[in-house]
Amino acid sequence: MNREEQATAEGILFTDMYQITMAQVYYRMGLQDKPVQFDHFFRSYPDYGSHKAGYCVAAGLEWFLDWLQSSHFRDEDIEYLRTLKSRSGDPLFADDFLAWLRKNGDFSGISLMAVPEGRVIHPNTPITVVRGPLAMAQILETSLLNQINFQTLIATKAARISETGRGQLMLEFGLRRGQDRGANAAARAALIGGADATSNVGISAVLGYKPSGTHAHSLVQLFMAMGMSELDAFRAFAEVYPDDCLLLVDTINTLESGVPNAIKVFEELRRKGHRPLGIRLDSGDLAYLSIQASRQLDAAGFTDCSIVLSNNLDELIIWQILTQITEEAPRYGVDPDRLISRLVYGVGTRLITSWGEPALGGVYKLVAVYDEGEWKPAIKISESPEKTPNPGDKRLWRIYDRRGKATADLVSLHEEDPHQMESILLRHPSDHTKCRVLTREDISAIEPLLEDVLVEGRLVREHPSIEDMRRRRQEDVERLDPGVRRIMYPHIYHVSLTQTLWDLKQQLIAAARGISV
Amino acid sequence: MNREEQATAEGILFTDMYQITMAQVYYRMGLQDKPVQFDHFFRSYPDYGSHKAGYCVAAGLEWFLDWLQSSHFRDEDIEYLRTLKSRSGDPLFADDFLAWLRKNGDFSGISLMAVPEGRVIHPNTPITVVRGPLAMAQILETSLLNQINFQTLIATKAARISETGRGQLMLEFGLRRGQDRGANAAARAALIGGADATSNVGISAVLGYKPSGTHAHSLVQLFMAMGMSELDAFRAFAEVYPDDCLLLVDTINTLESGVPNAIKVFEELRRKGHRPLGIRLDSGDLAYLSIQASRQLDAAGFTDCSIVLSNNLDELIIWQILTQITEEAPRYGVDPDRLISRLVYGVGTRLITSWGEPALGGVYKLVAVYDEGEWKPAIKISESPEKTPNPGDKRLWRIYDRRGKATADLVSLHEEDPHQMESILLRHPSDHTKCRVLTREDISAIEPLLEDVLVEGRLVREHPSIEDMRRRRQEDVERLDPGVRRIMYPHIYHVSLTQTLWDLKQQLIAAARGISV
Repeated sequence: MNREEQATAEGILFTDMYQITMAQVYYRMGLQDKPVQFDHFFRSYPDYGSHKAGYCVAAGLEWFLDWLQSSHFRDEDIEYLRTLKSRSGDPLFADDFLAWLRKNGDFSGISLMAVPEGRVIHPNTPITVVRGPLAMAQILETSLLNQINFQTLIATKAARISETGRGQLMLEFGLRRGQDRGANAAARAALIGGADATSNVGISAVLGYKPSGTHAHSLVQLFMAMGMSELDAFRAFAEVYPDDCLLLVDTINTLESGVPNAIKVFEELRRKGHRPLGIRLDSGDLAYLSIQASRQLDAAGFTDCSIVLSNNLDELIIWQILTQITEEAPRYGVDPDRLISRLVYGVGTRLITSWGEPALGGVYKLVAVYDEGEWKPAIKISESPEKTPNPGDKRLWRIYDRRGKATADLVSLHEEDPHQMESILLRHPSDHTKCRVLTREDISAIEPLLEDVLVEGRLVREHPSIEDMRRRRQEDVERLDPGVRRIMYPHIYHVSLTQTLWDLKQQLIAAARGISV
Repeated sequence: MNREEQATAEGILFTDMYQITMAQVYYRMGLQDKPVQFDHFFRSYPDYGSHKAGYCVAAGLEWFLDWLQSSHFRDEDIEYLRTLKSRSGDPLFADDFLAWLRKNGDFSGISLMAVPEGRVIHPNTPITVVRGPLAMAQILETSLLNQINFQTLIATKAARISETGRGQLMLEFGLRRGQDRGANAAARAALIGGADATSNVGISAVLGYKPSGTHAHSLVQLFMAMGMSELDAFRAFAEVYPDDCLLLVDTINTLESGVPNAIKVFEELRRKGHRPLGIRLDSGDLAYLSIQASRQLDAAGFTDCSIVLSNNLDELIIWQILTQITEEAPRYGVDPDRLISRLVYGVGTRLITSWGEPALGGVYKLVAVYDEGEWKPAIKISESPEKTPNPGDKRLWRIYDRRGKATADLVSLHEEDPHQMESILLRHPSDHTKCRVLTREDISAIEPLLEDVLVEGRLVREHPSIEDMRRRRQEDVERLDPGVRRIMYPHIYHVSLTQTLWDLKQQLIAAARGISV
């Protein structure tokens, strides 16, 4: 793709065809500007097969807003749509519709509320709420889902990996296994979710981070092909990076060649007054090798050298490595906690693809229509009760218990404020037998989660920095119950409706089924 | 990201940090322009868990070449690199290196051979071969792997789904579940691999395809929220698209509401002289519903209306649907083959994410170095013999048997030509006990697979069209043995080495191990 083609492929036509065919139907009926409201939410946590998330981390909003604010139907887009033909050979899109689209086809009428990036989020709660004229609110659906679903998916995976790694440095290394340019969004999301740096230079430049990475096997291999040795390669590297010397030690044999050669070079550096950074292990039994490598490093006095682990790491494999180190290290006289505290994780494929569940099923559903002078809640009933969305204009609240831990996310109608409630009845979103009452004494704080972001196309707040998002994520995760944070079979966090919203939902379901209640 | 940031994130800095740190080491040693050769290949077919591919489809080359030809170290890139500091606080990259990079940091020295897009490819054979100056040949690694691995992964999944769907129309619907801008690459790859159209408007515009898609549940839902009905929504749609009328019939109840309402509208269209296109089923038991819907459509005389199926389809689910239709349709007096021939598949999440295996493990390995006046083959030995790459400058051949079916891919040294061989000894790449002899009588054709694409930065051939690639893929797939095309436990296609290459490999392994042979 050249630049011009990329502008087409990533502009307002970054959407599904049916959004535009529906827009023409709405235009033909005079409905194109009818005010409507859509909710964006996901129905269940990522399920990675043998393990499942107990929370997600919101991400992707800022880039979606950038898209929204810079996209409109340009002449080129209109001309392309004009070329499309119906089966009869007539133009698919009529001239008056295309003229309307050229003139009005931007997002200046869109208002948007959202849960900020970095925050912990849960299923069946509104993450992004879009209000605006029907045709354009529909056209943005695809890009919103694409961008926010994907970054949320990756931020969630990063948070799991970071938690399992006990907060040790975690580096995103997945660019080569990423999804074309989508890898940049993934690297950003990984930083929000818990990675501390990325090997991706371009996205580091854009976000103001220092990219991470030292050398590949090919450095050693090249030296060997020229008749030199691993030690020569290490020396050449140390010569150029005396203060950032991190050596990949598994090209030939980790314990017999790589680590001893690294130690030789580290000793040379030390004599010149430099502190070596560490070694990287990229193959073999990473738990065993890190125990043995740490013994060799310690024996040579390099007790503060890091040991970077890489090679298909994810939350399960890191967990397994830590378990094995905890059991096995003492047998070799190594303190497992000290060893673990020098580990760094380089995580590639399994983070950037959200291995096990490579898509988040976020959806975008019509919840209200302005009709005959008033907002009417809309519903789509489903055969599975848990798939029936919550109708109307709503707000989202997080309730903290006396310990300061989040105990439930509460979805209310827009005019409700749980601060004003004497006690709060939490209704399960679809199971009428399940509810819970919280009194004022049970509650330490109630926090609104949705923020106004866009009012009629204009940003009404500054974008937070990635560091802000990372802080938010860390604070939110710390306020989760440990059971919710478990990587295996996490405790199910409570998402609830207020009684008023519950009643409205039941009323609309009954009406849609032709029953009066 | 704004445009400027995007140019940074997707330009030459779309690479891993270690490529640039290694480049400085090479520069410091005067090795930056040493001619080297890298092979790009993958080690195993995608393994989706319960099923596994028996072949892959090459894709992604053209966009990678676009990147290669438009990327170089700009002033902005150099200035960013200049800001990076070592742990001591000194600049990480020295001024002389950055000046060299600014002046020489492009891909004008790179030559490239590749297997063309759309062709069937197999593991452990060179798909892309890069020759050029060391520093720049190394810097392009990450982008090459990112772009060609991902599109090959998706083209491969599309080919599987298309094959299972027995060549019926297959539509790519995954944009909303795609990976940010990576979804455009995926849509392109899906078209190469077997999708006949995509719902993605922008990429359709760029590639010259007609995007597919009609309407969403929200159309029906909106009408209902305004006090109107599903039938009203269908009529409004038919009014605007009388010759392209495809109605989504599962918003309320497929068989009791959706299909009967669609038929009413189709009858109205027929009376006005239009031919309705069909219906789409997006939930429920798609096999059962398509049988019953086809009965209703047939009874009303709409025997040529298509039935589009969507909802988490992939090769296994389509296979299951077809199996169920074959068993169940006759019980309802429906001819299964006729029903199957009216089906169209809309495939979303599971195609665009390559569900089950969301990354292709393609690698990029040094195979030769020009040193002391001659090309020297390079090798990296591995503890797993099948992971030791094939050394040297090589060529790739496909050998067809007397039936015209591909019987083996043969990797030779560059100076060998199997056309000149009396009989061909096919050596297994790592297992010395396995070999096979083909005589001239066994062979109907021998075809070279690698084409010269780039010579010192200049394209030496036209890019084929997507239609060319689709044709190639279809021809290649038809020339595979049916056993290789199976979606479950496919027959393992033979990838072999010539005796000369085998001998060279053994010699280098022995030398690396310090054994003389």
